[in-house]
Amino acid sequence: MKKATIIGAAGFGGAGLIEILTRHPGFLIKQLIEKKDTGIPVSDIFPHLRDACNLTLDSPDNVDFDTDIVFFSTPDRVGMEIIDEYYKKGIPVIDFSGDFRFKNTQEYAVYANNKGIDDKHLAPHLLKESVYGLPEKNRKAIAEAKIVGNPGCFATAMILGMLPVMDEGIIESDTIICDGKTGVSGAGKNSGEANLYPQRHENINAYREGHHQHLVETENIINAKNKTSKKILFIPQVIPMTRGILVTIYADIKEGYDTKKIESLYNDYYKGEPFVTITGRSPGTADVRGSNRCIIKPAVDRRTGKLFVTAAIDNLMKGQSGNAVQAANIMMGFDETTALNMPGSYP
Amino acid sequence: MKKATIIGAAGFGGAGLIEILTRHPGFLIKQLIEKKDTGIPVSDIFPHLRDACNLTLDSPDNVDFDTDIVFFSTPDRVGMEIIDEYYKKGIPVIDFSGDFRFKNTQEYAVYANNKGIDDKHLAPHLLKESVYGLPEKNRKAIAEAKIVGNPGCFATAMILGMLPVMDEGIIESDTIICDGKTGVSGAGKNSGEANLYPQRHENINAYREGHHQHLVETENIINAKNKTSKKILFIPQVIPMTRGILVTIYADIKEGYDTKKIESLYNDYYKGEPFVTITGRSPGTADVRGSNRCIIKPAVDRRTGKLFVTAAIDNLMKGQSGNAVQAANIMMGFDETTALNMPGSYP
Amino acid sequence: MKKATIIGAAGFGGAGLIEILTRHPGFLIKQLIEKKDTGIPVSDIFPHLRDACNLTLDSPDNVDFDTDIVFFSTPDRVGMEIIDEYYKKGIPVIDFSGDFRFKNTQEYAVYANNKGIDDKHLAPHLLKESVYGLPEKNRKAIAEAKIVGNPGCFATAMILGMLPVMDEGIIESDTIICDGKTGVSGAGKNSGEANLYPQRHENINAYREGHHQHLVETENIINAKNKTSKKILFIPQVIPMTRGILVTIYADIKEGYDTKKIESLYNDYYKGEPFVTITGRSPGTADVRGSNRCIIKPAVDRRTGKLFVTAAIDNLMKGQSGNAVQAANIMMGFDETTALNMPGSYP
Amino acid sequence: MKKATIIGAAGFGGAGLIEILTRHPGFLIKQLIEKKDTGIPVSDIFPHLRDACNLTLDSPDNVDFDTDIVFFSTPDRVGMEIIDEYYKKGIPVIDFSGDFRFKNTQEYAVYANNKGIDDKHLAPHLLKESVYGLPEKNRKAIAEAKIVGNPGCFATAMILGMLPVMDEGIIESDTIICDGKTGVSGAGKNSGEANLYPQRHENINAYREGHHQHLVETENIINAKNKTSKKILFIPQVIPMTRGILVTIYADIKEGYDTKKIESLYNDYYKGEPFVTITGRSPGTADVRGSNRCIIKPAVDRRTGKLFVTAAIDNLMKGQSGNAVQAANIMMGFDETTALNMPGSYP
Repeated sequence: MKKATIIGAAGFGGAGLIEILTRHPGFLIKQLIEKKDTGIPVSDIFPHLRDACNLTLDSPDNVDFDTDIVFFSTPDRVGMEIIDEYYKKGIPVIDFSGDFRFKNTQEYAVYANNKGIDDKHLAPHLLKESVYGLPEKNRKAIAEAKIVGNPGCFATAMILGMLPVMDEGIIESDTIICDGKTGVSGAGKNSGEANLYPQRHENINAYREGHHQHLVETENIINAKNKTSKKILFIPQVIPMTRGILVTIYADIKEGYDTKKIESLYNDYYKGEPFVTITGRSPGTADVRGSNRCIIKPAVDRRTGKLFVTAAIDNLMKGQSGNAVQAANIMMGFDETTALNMPGSYP
Repeated sequence: MKKATIIGAAGFGGAGLIEILTRHPGFLIKQLIEKKDTGIPVSDIFPHLRDACNLTLDSPDNVDFDTDIVFFSTPDRVGMEIIDEYYKKGIPVIDFSGDFRFKNTQEYAVYANNKGIDDKHLAPHLLKESVYGLPEKNRKAIAEAKIVGNPGCFATAMILGMLPVMDEGIIESDTIICDGKTGVSGAGKNSGEANLYPQRHENINAYREGHHQHLVETENIINAKNKTSKKILFIPQVIPMTRGILVTIYADIKEGYDTKKIESLYNDYYKGEPFVTITGRSPGTADVRGSNRCIIKPAVDRRTGKLFVTAAIDNLMKGQSGNAVQAANIMMGFDETTALNMPGSYP
Repeated sequence: MKKATIIGAAGFGGAGLIEILTRHPGFLIKQLIEKKDTGIPVSDIFPHLRDACNLTLDSPDNVDFDTDIVFFSTPDRVGMEIIDEYYKKGIPVIDFSGDFRFKNTQEYAVYANNKGIDDKHLAPHLLKESVYGLPEKNRKAIAEAKIVGNPGCFATAMILGMLPVMDEGIIESDTIICDGKTGVSGAGKNSGEANLYPQRHENINAYREGHHQHLVETENIINAKNKTSKKILFIPQVIPMTRGILVTIYADIKEGYDTKKIESLYNDYYKGEPFVTITGRSPGTADVRGSNRCIIKPAVDRRTGKLFVTAAIDNLMKGQSGNAVQAANIMMGFDETTALNMPGSYP
Repeated sequence: MKKATIIGAAGFGGAGLIEILTRHPGFLIKQLIEKKDTGIPVSDIFPHLRDACNLTLDSPDNVDFDTDIVFFSTPDRVGMEIIDEYYKKGIPVIDFSGDFRFKNTQEYAVYANNKGIDDKHLAPHLLKESVYGLPEKNRKAIAEAKIVGNPGCFATAMILGMLPVMDEGIIESDTIICDGKTGVSGAGKNSGEANLYPQRHENINAYREGHHQHLVETENIINAKNKTSKKILFIPQVIPMTRGILVTIYADIKEGYDTKKIESLYNDYYKGEPFVTITGRSPGTADVRGSNRCIIKPAVDRRTGKLFVTAAIDNLMKGQSGNAVQAANIMMGFDETTALNMPGSYP
């Protein structure tokens, strides 16, 4: 049994990790760390965990380093102040924020400015030690990583939707258009007046059009193999639901590719991937609710010749905690699908 | 007082018309026609109308031609069988379906095939008499029309979002991308298993990608002024809400246009339009819920130079009954905003 | 034209008032007062009001007393500090909080303790000048009132559901059970983490069981006529919707009353009431959404002989702004239904 | 490995069973039977099952009797025509409908009339062989049963909420009031126009007031131990959510019981029950979403002395498939919690 510590246990990310790790035969949750509400059973915060986890929340001051892996389910700029200590002790960490998704401080600064936070990275020396934690791209590097930056939820959907055509080098547009739709939970457990039920129901609106913080990592990863510099015009939109992301991707594609050929390319590319499904049927976020799966429908429009791809994930699973456990399975030598090979629930 | 008849009174379109016309100082609802439930007070179908309208549903067999205008809030292929009778009597009609949105049978056939219905038009001679009922484009023609084809809901949002740049001739892409999101009410009052609450909640999926039935009319109208032949790649998506459409439009634009210049162009184009608002703030469908307004935010992405436009309407108001009454106001000589100049309700 | 001032214009109550008053032929909104965001157009806060109201928010420091009526759409304990000034000038006010719903400070203290706020009333001398603003009970007193305490939303539904049988004196239970269900908007525009979309969707829970703050006023009013002292066991519950209240009332009733006789009693009691509808069909909150109506279904269970009554209102209309304007119409001498005789919209 | 057959595999009950059984180490799903769509992979009906279950739907004509247990996730009156065949072969069955919840045809007839279906039972001889499948009441009988009638969802919540006080004999009212609220999924996968998204959102209404079909079984079970004949006045209500039931129970109770004493009684009664949690904190349906748990808060109102109890379940889990698997675990000799000891997911 590997011991796992969760820092930031009282957010949605913490809840997701506890749900998965308590059904994981290889992990034992050692400690739940939270700034607020210390001394309180986590099931007072999340009553659904009452019979699954009887731990209480511990203060950051009481952190126990006798652990095999640490999940930082914390806001931006928390991990970068602390993770060095774990790094020096050789304890692997997975960070949920943008702190360790980039290779240099310039990229971080663009990310931070898009998000409207302080843009000075506090642990630049750790950036080159960190790995972008998307198994479908970086499986081997993750296996040996000491610091993993867990991908952004929108980035995960965009990257998985585009990797096959980008790595194959058949995209001809300089700009790729990504139209994203997310449930409200992506904004976290205490996200302010705009996300109250009355304000979000019966409402959809775009935000941070063209400058969402997940642009940097997405452009990095999709351009990596062929050293291209294609840009994404990404318009995210919030829709009245809790979980789920659907991204619709539009691009020009080399001549000679129709839907059949593109489907075949995607199937080959993701062959053997345990959590990616290629389909010819329009995926709904309900099909991935509660699961770590990404369902992708790639197609070519007959009238205009354009490529369009829809990709659906659960933003709190493949877009957050599920992907983190998938990475942790790789890091700890477990079967990659352990505790994740479940279909979610419907309806 | 003008007498109005509603054919198809027990659907969402009928309810919307009754809501508006009962507060309209110039219209008196003469008769409500429905195939089912005849003899039943309409307020048994729609209890919220109980004190607004005390009419009962009449059978199509009892139609009274002593009326000044007829609204066909009926499915496809109902109006085309009947409207000739009204036309011959000189009674103006507004049809909510696709029956009278096109100038020839070929266009109708494409529409019908996209929608999966019989593609043979039954009243071809009336097509050239009919006017596409979008006041922002065809105000004068509507004023004199005897047959008005009320625009499709998605078409309305797409057209209004694109007209200024298309008519100005500054779109450079051959293909314009429209990513549409609609509430469930667009599918009507009895739309089948896929639209049950459990199946629609926490779910978003695309459908009829690239071949939605509103493509034909949209491409017609936006290309009309400059006789261009630009195509639209339109991916509609259903989201878990009842009312509202948000369309996000992407296109390449002539050099030299930034957000400021584009905003100015849109403001000029829609100057004096009573129901179009140009804004720099991302519109939400909640901002137009229950109102006949279309709010448009046009912008140019600084990183990629692309034009992107978001346009929000209430699909049952500006996208259906509201627009129909706006057209009827024009046809009857009322102030165009009568009974429509209200803000809806929030939240 | 009567001049109206709204204090607390940027909340849901303020929005509701502006929606109604801007379509009211007898009122002109003179001033919108708010502590925050002064100098900002109210349509920056509520974009849907953009074409209905072009006023900006004014600071409380700039209040203009040249007004005919003042709506205090403010939290508890704001009105009681200010209203004396208006009272002395003879300007009538309607207060939305619990400040002026009671005849004495003891009752206020129970209310305040139930709600968890300071229980010392700051303007006890005004309590006896104030009138409980439910037209169906206090129409005449409202007409002459200078201070009206607008009823609580749950209280309105409970009182209207019980008045006929209580005033008739045929309830035999000492305790009446009220099971209440409310949408989330009742908690206001910035009501904290528990009311975020992800926390409220797919969730129903009870709260303040047996000690909700609307108990005092409800028991006051229903016991008034016959000087009884019946108590209510009231369990409120929040359900995943924005607008609407449904209250289900249970009580023992004198022998000899069946559903038909009870329906007849309710119909007689509310004869001529413009906003109360008695029905034999289970009312849904969708039937009153956006309207000032209360729909009541009274019945007697054949198996157990118990009376049960369901009453539906829109908590932001008959439960708040709509009722306030109804009272204001009475106070200003307008037809009581002015600007309120509309059916809302469906779906 | 025990072989399990699911008859009625394409409904919500079937989906729930497949979700649970595919993660169950002791069951192998042998066959999925469905009238429609035979030959189709079940994952074409429920895409989320794609990687969990690769079975196709089989016709009832192809039923294979080489199975250890059969789940009839079928509508009323299907099981009663077929189950005799299994009974004769000694194959145990669990039926989800009301066909086998009663001990005699009179009770069935009341049930059937309440539900508006044919009231003649077609297999009366099997009624006395069947067991009401609520483990908390009938664990031992279930272990030996050949035919189990899986309880109704509302019945489960009401019974679990009342058993401790009923079996203790301390309820003094002749009538117990149950105010029930359910999500829409209880109406099944194809439940008609009234349950479409636009009709259900922002809506709550009561239905079958006083004559819901779950009354018979609930009154049977709660009166069983002390041979009482207390009646329930049950008002069910549908609320805008998909999963979840909250029942609020009101009754008079013997003197001398306060909340503390009642909590203690409930805790003692359910001691050792793996799926019942007693709490002092108001349970929400979100706390049991996706889990087999029932959370109960019993309390005594200080002002009126009345007992009130809230009980929350997931109607598709403890109210349907979860409870069925719990019973199947007992019948097959597995640990009762196998494949059910998971917390669901939040939010």
